[in-house]
Amino acid sequence: MSDMTVLDVPTFEDVVAAHERIKPHIHLTPVLTSSYLNALTGAELYFKCENFQKAGAFKVRGASNAVFGLSEEKAKKGVATHSSGNHALSLSYAAGRRGIPVTVVMPRTAPEAKKQAVRGYGGEIVECEPSTSSREATFKEVVAETGAEFVHPYNDPRVIAGQATCSLELTGQVDGLDAVIAPIGGGGMVSGTCLTLSTIAPDIEIYAAEPKNADDAYRSFKAGHIIADDAPQTIADGLKVPLKELTWHFVSRHVTDILTATEDQIIDAMKLTWQRMKIVMEPSCAVPLATILKNREVFAGKRVGVIITGGNVDLDTLPWMRA
Amino acid sequence: MSDMTVLDVPTFEDVVAAHERIKPHIHLTPVLTSSYLNALTGAELYFKCENFQKAGAFKVRGASNAVFGLSEEKAKKGVATHSSGNHALSLSYAAGRRGIPVTVVMPRTAPEAKKQAVRGYGGEIVECEPSTSSREATFKEVVAETGAEFVHPYNDPRVIAGQATCSLELTGQVDGLDAVIAPIGGGGMVSGTCLTLSTIAPDIEIYAAEPKNADDAYRSFKAGHIIADDAPQTIADGLKVPLKELTWHFVSRHVTDILTATEDQIIDAMKLTWQRMKIVMEPSCAVPLATILKNREVFAGKRVGVIITGGNVDLDTLPWMRA
Repeated sequence: MSDMTVLDVPTFEDVVAAHERIKPHIHLTPVLTSSYLNALTGAELYFKCENFQKAGAFKVRGASNAVFGLSEEKAKKGVATHSSGNHALSLSYAAGRRGIPVTVVMPRTAPEAKKQAVRGYGGEIVECEPSTSSREATFKEVVAETGAEFVHPYNDPRVIAGQATCSLELTGQVDGLDAVIAPIGGGGMVSGTCLTLSTIAPDIEIYAAEPKNADDAYRSFKAGHIIADDAPQTIADGLKVPLKELTWHFVSRHVTDILTATEDQIIDAMKLTWQRMKIVMEPSCAVPLATILKNREVFAGKRVGVIITGGNVDLDTLPWMRA
Repeated sequence: MSDMTVLDVPTFEDVVAAHERIKPHIHLTPVLTSSYLNALTGAELYFKCENFQKAGAFKVRGASNAVFGLSEEKAKKGVATHSSGNHALSLSYAAGRRGIPVTVVMPRTAPEAKKQAVRGYGGEIVECEPSTSSREATFKEVVAETGAEFVHPYNDPRVIAGQATCSLELTGQVDGLDAVIAPIGGGGMVSGTCLTLSTIAPDIEIYAAEPKNADDAYRSFKAGHIIADDAPQTIADGLKVPLKELTWHFVSRHVTDILTATEDQIIDAMKLTWQRMKIVMEPSCAVPLATILKNREVFAGKRVGVIITGGNVDLDTLPWMRA
């Protein structure tokens, strides 16, 4: 009758409440189109530009929902998290707006631009090694010290309800979508997309796009249970983390398919988007377009929402400059 | 009673007609804001994003107005121009939309991305040396051969009326502007801005921003007559060309002041905009922000329209990667 593990699964009512709560703190981001990319893919692509979002990424939605939903008493002790980057920025931004302390555990290898931005928002950084295990160990120490409220980057119902507001906006901005595609790392954005669309537009297909070099979600999806890798290497640095129980709940139930792309395909799609759409976006955001270009037959003729998840790039080390 | 030279000066009626004519062929580009840059400058900046324009630059406005205003008979012989880049792209785009031939004379040193894009729109390129004199000599030969209609990149009433539609849109998008600032090279965008604003909003100040390394418009403005340099060197490659009679007409009458910025200031402002606003824009577009940062006292407390003129950058040779 029910799962063995009792999960605190967010509902669509939580999404609506989240949207009301976070609206004063986020942008209603624009949807851009490109006739060039439409011609190239044979699809009608609608790019939801969360790279223009506050703090530079969609993650500010979930982080703001968590921070502004805290009781006064809990808020006083502050918030803490571990994150490969954008959740750290976003939680720092949200905590700053509320005026409460925030500590983030971050891999020492994270882009300098992200570290500077966290500090710019008033966040305190504690560095760890670039592996899931080191990250989680370091984090435990931080929480023990501060008593701060843990806001997980994705395995948190408040965060998923917040991310779910993105596709809620998108369906209001674009009529008649046939599919939505988003990058998948830990699965927060994809879970939020599942939560919203399975409720208000269950006919819209949901695709997740993943780097081939960090394809644990793809393998999990095919195997029917979570497979987690420690420290995979990909240029799409936001997508290295594994699925967790709560995101697996949504991904396993509502995702149509998970598609993968190689590093070269991701870099090519990233450069192409910068060239043609004139937007700065992260390598992670290029994974959906890379998989659309690779799987033309899946998307041709369809109206496809493509979630551009963030724009926090270190401009001094662009991937096509490394050759 | 009148100037010694009889100029074919476009009127505001020409601007309104141009807007009707080109609307099917251009984007109504968005206006973006940045709370970070507002805090940094003390001004309220409204960025009119012509980098998202068709063909990647505002120049498609003037080029489309010229191309779609041609009689059938004239159109058959095609159009031709010389341009440091974006006018070439734009004229090729517009000619392609109308299905007529287009030849462009372009410096051999122009960014490869621009040459490829011209060819992508079906334009034929004839290369010249990177000086105004070589460009004009080569161009004469091309016109003699083809009989094509010359559409000058800026010293043309059709082009200025087209560019003038940009500030017409901007005043509809942002209320209560105190000032508008745009980069100045040949002066087409600034002249269009003068034409529109002097008619419909004469209280709005008009600033032009120029690279110190190519400050012929600045020196012309201070001297009271056109001073033209041959082949100045600046990273802002769209701003190397001199004023001509028609643009001087507008600049000398309606511009509040011309401000300059060094190469380093331009590059810093460009990188800052990419980092914070997540948009890809050309070095030329960064000159206004560079001068605003330098002249804080001029702009602080004002609502300022900043025209981001284009986004056609060679991503393989970004200026901050050259060090």
